[in-house]
Amino acid sequence: MVVGKSVQRVDAVDKVTGRAKYTDDLCDKQALIAKICHSTIGNGKVLSIDTAEAEKVPGVVKIVTCFDIGEKHYFPTAGHPWSTDPNHQDVADRLVLTDRVRFYGDDIAAVIAEDEVAAAQAVRALKVTYEEYPVVLDPIEAMKDDAPRLHEEYPNNILNHTSSRFGNYEEAIKEEGLTKVEGWYDTPTVQHCHIENFICYAYQEGERLTVVASTQIPHIVRRIVGQAVGMDWGKIRIVKPYIGGGFGNKQDALYEPLCAFLCKQVGGRLVKLDISREETFMSNRVRHAMKFHLVSYVRKDGTFAARKFEAYSNQGGYASHGHSIAAKAMGAFPQLYPCENVECDAYTVFTNRTVAGAMRGYGMPQFAFAVESHTDDVAKVMGIEPIAFRKQNLMPVGYVDPFSKNELYTDSFNQCMEKGMKYIDYERKLKEYQNQTGDVRKGIGMSVFWYNTAVWPISLETSSCRMVLNQDGSVQIQLGETEIGQGADTAYAQMTADVLGIPFENVHTISTQDTDITPFGTGAYASRQTYVAGFAIKQTGLLMKARILKYAHELTRMPEYNLDIVDGNIVRTTDGRELMTLGELAKEALYSLEHCEHITSESTAQIKSNAYSFGCCFAEVEVDVPMCKIQLVDIVNVHDCGKLINPSLAEAQVHGGMSMGIGYGMSETLLYDEKTGKPLNNNLLDYKLSTFMDHPHLEAEFVENEEPTSAFGTKSLGEPPACPVASAIRNAVLQATGVAVNQAPLRPQVLFERFKEEGLI
Amino acid sequence: MVVGKSVQRVDAVDKVTGRAKYTDDLCDKQALIAKICHSTIGNGKVLSIDTAEAEKVPGVVKIVTCFDIGEKHYFPTAGHPWSTDPNHQDVADRLVLTDRVRFYGDDIAAVIAEDEVAAAQAVRALKVTYEEYPVVLDPIEAMKDDAPRLHEEYPNNILNHTSSRFGNYEEAIKEEGLTKVEGWYDTPTVQHCHIENFICYAYQEGERLTVVASTQIPHIVRRIVGQAVGMDWGKIRIVKPYIGGGFGNKQDALYEPLCAFLCKQVGGRLVKLDISREETFMSNRVRHAMKFHLVSYVRKDGTFAARKFEAYSNQGGYASHGHSIAAKAMGAFPQLYPCENVECDAYTVFTNRTVAGAMRGYGMPQFAFAVESHTDDVAKVMGIEPIAFRKQNLMPVGYVDPFSKNELYTDSFNQCMEKGMKYIDYERKLKEYQNQTGDVRKGIGMSVFWYNTAVWPISLETSSCRMVLNQDGSVQIQLGETEIGQGADTAYAQMTADVLGIPFENVHTISTQDTDITPFGTGAYASRQTYVAGFAIKQTGLLMKARILKYAHELTRMPEYNLDIVDGNIVRTTDGRELMTLGELAKEALYSLEHCEHITSESTAQIKSNAYSFGCCFAEVEVDVPMCKIQLVDIVNVHDCGKLINPSLAEAQVHGGMSMGIGYGMSETLLYDEKTGKPLNNNLLDYKLSTFMDHPHLEAEFVENEEPTSAFGTKSLGEPPACPVASAIRNAVLQATGVAVNQAPLRPQVLFERFKEEGLI
Repeated sequence: MVVGKSVQRVDAVDKVTGRAKYTDDLCDKQALIAKICHSTIGNGKVLSIDTAEAEKVPGVVKIVTCFDIGEKHYFPTAGHPWSTDPNHQDVADRLVLTDRVRFYGDDIAAVIAEDEVAAAQAVRALKVTYEEYPVVLDPIEAMKDDAPRLHEEYPNNILNHTSSRFGNYEEAIKEEGLTKVEGWYDTPTVQHCHIENFICYAYQEGERLTVVASTQIPHIVRRIVGQAVGMDWGKIRIVKPYIGGGFGNKQDALYEPLCAFLCKQVGGRLVKLDISREETFMSNRVRHAMKFHLVSYVRKDGTFAARKFEAYSNQGGYASHGHSIAAKAMGAFPQLYPCENVECDAYTVFTNRTVAGAMRGYGMPQFAFAVESHTDDVAKVMGIEPIAFRKQNLMPVGYVDPFSKNELYTDSFNQCMEKGMKYIDYERKLKEYQNQTGDVRKGIGMSVFWYNTAVWPISLETSSCRMVLNQDGSVQIQLGETEIGQGADTAYAQMTADVLGIPFENVHTISTQDTDITPFGTGAYASRQTYVAGFAIKQTGLLMKARILKYAHELTRMPEYNLDIVDGNIVRTTDGRELMTLGELAKEALYSLEHCEHITSESTAQIKSNAYSFGCCFAEVEVDVPMCKIQLVDIVNVHDCGKLINPSLAEAQVHGGMSMGIGYGMSETLLYDEKTGKPLNNNLLDYKLSTFMDHPHLEAEFVENEEPTSAFGTKSLGEPPACPVASAIRNAVLQATGVAVNQAPLRPQVLFERFKEEGLI
Repeated sequence: MVVGKSVQRVDAVDKVTGRAKYTDDLCDKQALIAKICHSTIGNGKVLSIDTAEAEKVPGVVKIVTCFDIGEKHYFPTAGHPWSTDPNHQDVADRLVLTDRVRFYGDDIAAVIAEDEVAAAQAVRALKVTYEEYPVVLDPIEAMKDDAPRLHEEYPNNILNHTSSRFGNYEEAIKEEGLTKVEGWYDTPTVQHCHIENFICYAYQEGERLTVVASTQIPHIVRRIVGQAVGMDWGKIRIVKPYIGGGFGNKQDALYEPLCAFLCKQVGGRLVKLDISREETFMSNRVRHAMKFHLVSYVRKDGTFAARKFEAYSNQGGYASHGHSIAAKAMGAFPQLYPCENVECDAYTVFTNRTVAGAMRGYGMPQFAFAVESHTDDVAKVMGIEPIAFRKQNLMPVGYVDPFSKNELYTDSFNQCMEKGMKYIDYERKLKEYQNQTGDVRKGIGMSVFWYNTAVWPISLETSSCRMVLNQDGSVQIQLGETEIGQGADTAYAQMTADVLGIPFENVHTISTQDTDITPFGTGAYASRQTYVAGFAIKQTGLLMKARILKYAHELTRMPEYNLDIVDGNIVRTTDGRELMTLGELAKEALYSLEHCEHITSESTAQIKSNAYSFGCCFAEVEVDVPMCKIQLVDIVNVHDCGKLINPSLAEAQVHGGMSMGIGYGMSETLLYDEKTGKPLNNNLLDYKLSTFMDHPHLEAEFVENEEPTSAFGTKSLGEPPACPVASAIRNAVLQATGVAVNQAPLRPQVLFERFKEEGLI
């Protein structure tokens, strides 16, 4: 069995040798180049665009402005499966080009030219006149009655507000002897910063449009492009090659719709749209900056009597994934520390910032920063050691969420915390670092989290798979669930090998999705890949195996139930004898004059389950108080994501997520000019992306409680590693300095203000 | 119903606008370029190749000679399905590079360079020393004991000799009153002259090799490349984009094996091999030049008493398709004019000419030239009008071939001949043109033929198909049977539309075959495409329809047998009501939270039937006797290929075949230097390819007798049009001049010799 083994990635050699092909590698060098003209105001209206000078630039083929788009096909961009119920469809508020500007960098025109220089020159030569409105960048400001309104149909700029109530909060807080702990917590706007910026190209064949794109969600983008250009969805074909990361940014349709539209404007010629890093920060998607207001009423024994949760999520200019991210954060609140009396409210609010969408963790890094900071704040007020406090209040074994039906089957939280404590020598250090003085102080902190796997029952979960048997007994597999750098193709090959009983090397995962031929699956998001695709692989593999054994019966006379496939051989189970290789069988099946059959299998697995993933992070810091600088000394993430398909790949996932969490906690934030809404540091020089240089050794450990709802015992791991890190660091700083820093990232400026407030400097 | 309608080709606009992508369009412009060093002797041995000067050419990456190929993996090149029975496998006599030269232009070394100029320069700089042997170019000469032997294992250079005997020829010729008519007939070496020369490129991904190639037979080439480079077949992936014609030349593995081998020599880097026209003539494949010796013993009443058939087929230097072409010609002999006493012998003989392989008609143009010339010769000797003579002797209605089980169900021969006679006003002209004198004489002549469809029972016939339903009710289809310019994709779309009950526009044929994912089918040859793929389409379409109606039942409560799909709508058959569109059903199926299913279907159809196609050609010529020049004045082909899927496309097929037949009859022949075996006119200036300028109006007519073994009533049409043309022209010249010209093409030099012999000049 190869599931559970750290086999080498199937794409390892191709990726390190540069042989692997990404979108730009595949695009014909004669493609026309498109460049976008982005608004240079943050809110307002385009009155006119004078193209006269731009038209004169040699090499310009076509200029298309927001006034030339013809019939307005509004489309949503969120990478969610379509819903046939209009009430559950995403908000369709985008146009390929718009005259109503809602953020600095909105798309108002585009130039198609023979080369990049001409396109860029022409964009600069466009003369745009605007009617400019004031900007609003903060969700709470934006909710005020006198705030500028971004979308007519949303009063107070509230895209959505949802509540949930358990018990009776107002009554519960009247209980005697309660301690009230209240806090506001603030998380930043950050960008995904995948290595490969978004890029796509489009061309027409017959009446059909093909878009080759760096996307996580080809089958979803097909539908969105169809909506955006007003074509039947079956006339759209999306191809997804290898991509250089996505982290959720590419779980939106980014510029596939615009590129397809532009292609149509030049008679179907090949048009490429390659987005720069500066544009990526400005006009792709970002993580929702959220403000949280948390209140806990705690009994003397350390239990919660009542709790309140308020979240204000900064949506930016358009709906994208909409309220689902704030809602996910809110939904987690009553589950992590169950309490009888809870009031939750979540607001998603339009502002003139960059549009917020999906990003690794999907609301949970924000949630964890707020709630796990607050947990330490409560523990501190109550004078209880933070882990002891958590053990007392965390979701108990046997807990079942009434909505998702997720269950905590095992003692995962404690198992994870104990591993983390042991690695980092928690108890000793906790004592050692108490009551420090001096300029440089050490501290240790931690944070827990839980995370769903896939999106059922909120939305559709489905995965289809096809397998094709070759003459040598090797197999291709095709899935709509995409390789986006995380190693999905390798995990799929491992699963397939085990289901079919063939060597790992004999499974060829078709990495490229092509919506014309790839079985339907919705793509990479919600940490769904190994869980969801696992069902499709198991089901389709069993169908395939049955077909193989049926043919083996014809060749061997042995009944199918006395046959098995072991290590690529047809084996008689009664005595273990190898009757033939699978390759011999496959050749006979393909070339038999008697009974010729191309053995393939295909099926759809609809998934009506979901699973909790668990874990924690422990961080040790050294804070230079006068310098307002944190050094991360040691860090460990411990995850229970069920059975590990490939421990090395799992470890790599955790390393990447920890790095993202470190940036989130310590350095990254996209800043805006308050007056114009212009992003100020939308480049990798000024935006302080966490890098290898900022990291100590990243320790990744695992607890493997096999998930019983899962085809291979696995559950989500893609996003979880990013969730608990910032809060663990924040709590370590709290332990080191006694200062609760409630704004992420804990960059020097924030520390300076807080240390000053608290009298440390 | 769209089958039977002249809908526009699905690729029409893309092909006329240049949007359609061919192999070279798809190849990365940074590919390394390979050039082949061809032998400059026709027979012998390479003693050494000095690469020193060539290595110095800037840009040369690697030079590989016949001494560097390592382990010798002999491989066959013929595009036949693999046989698991070694006795039925093609002759494996090729190496990617050889030191034993068997024809002028054999492949002895290759240069890989950064660009084409460097590669060509380096090839010229290679210093080759040979041991040279005498050449033999004629099969009858080659069979002599003292002829140079090409392959040690084949005495007298005979690759194969087969015989068939019916009745007792030796006894039968003793019957009294018989007239003996005897003749030798000679056909030329011609080349296919497809617009796009062979081209391919190869690259490695992981441990697997991909070859993108201009081929008719991707699934077969996969196997051959695997054999040639000694890799498991499943590690090879062949991709076939649009191709600019093949006509059988690309039914061989041409240089895919060499290109794959070269790619491996440079660590899997992308290597392109683009063959020039001169190389195409010299070292691709050609049509077998055949010599026939025919003897007929005819009774006074015009019936045959006994017949003899001898064919000597010029194989060139390697086996390629081997004896199957001569065997096919021989097999046709007893069937066209059944006779009780027949002796047939066919010899396929190695010579030092260009390797002969498959070419449109696969032995039947040669057969028809010989046999139908001979038929007119017999009729003339017997004083019977040629059509009356044929009607008396042709295969009768109800005839069943004992081997293929093919049956002549209908009066196809007479129906075809009557249409042709009517069009060309045969009877009037036949009389009018009798007994002409003068310099310029007119004549009318005709020829009949029959042709098989597909290759059963000689070889495997199988076709697999996959269909994929889109959200809008449109469908993709995938097949291993390839579009090679003939319009197959369009015919498949028509068939699919009718089987599923959806509009033609809603079927998207996936034109590109990719052996990793395309269902197994052996490709384009033997005029099998519409016949063989038709079964797979019908079977897979019915499976698909059943799945759709099953889902429709869930949505409508109506039992499946009360439902149908009509024009893209789910229709209740009891009252004809449209319950929903197929698009609505497909959306529900893909996005249902209740029951999600990606509706696809896939199946293999093994075909154990074959079908006769019939037809004839009538030609009217004007012969300028002193100038030894023929002008073709009018020509008509009439075909019974069963039901026409697309009359316009069928007509285009016939036009193309007639053009090829005209060249075969009048101008085309590849000439060789007798001493060296060097091709003398291997370019399109000196090789007199028949062109538009040489053609009168080409009239194509049809008799549509629906073929009962066929899924759509259709049978072979791809090759038939090329078969009867040369013989019809020859017979018209016979009528005009009284001179039997038994050597094709009837070019001025041949006419000059014959007219002189007969005293006309």
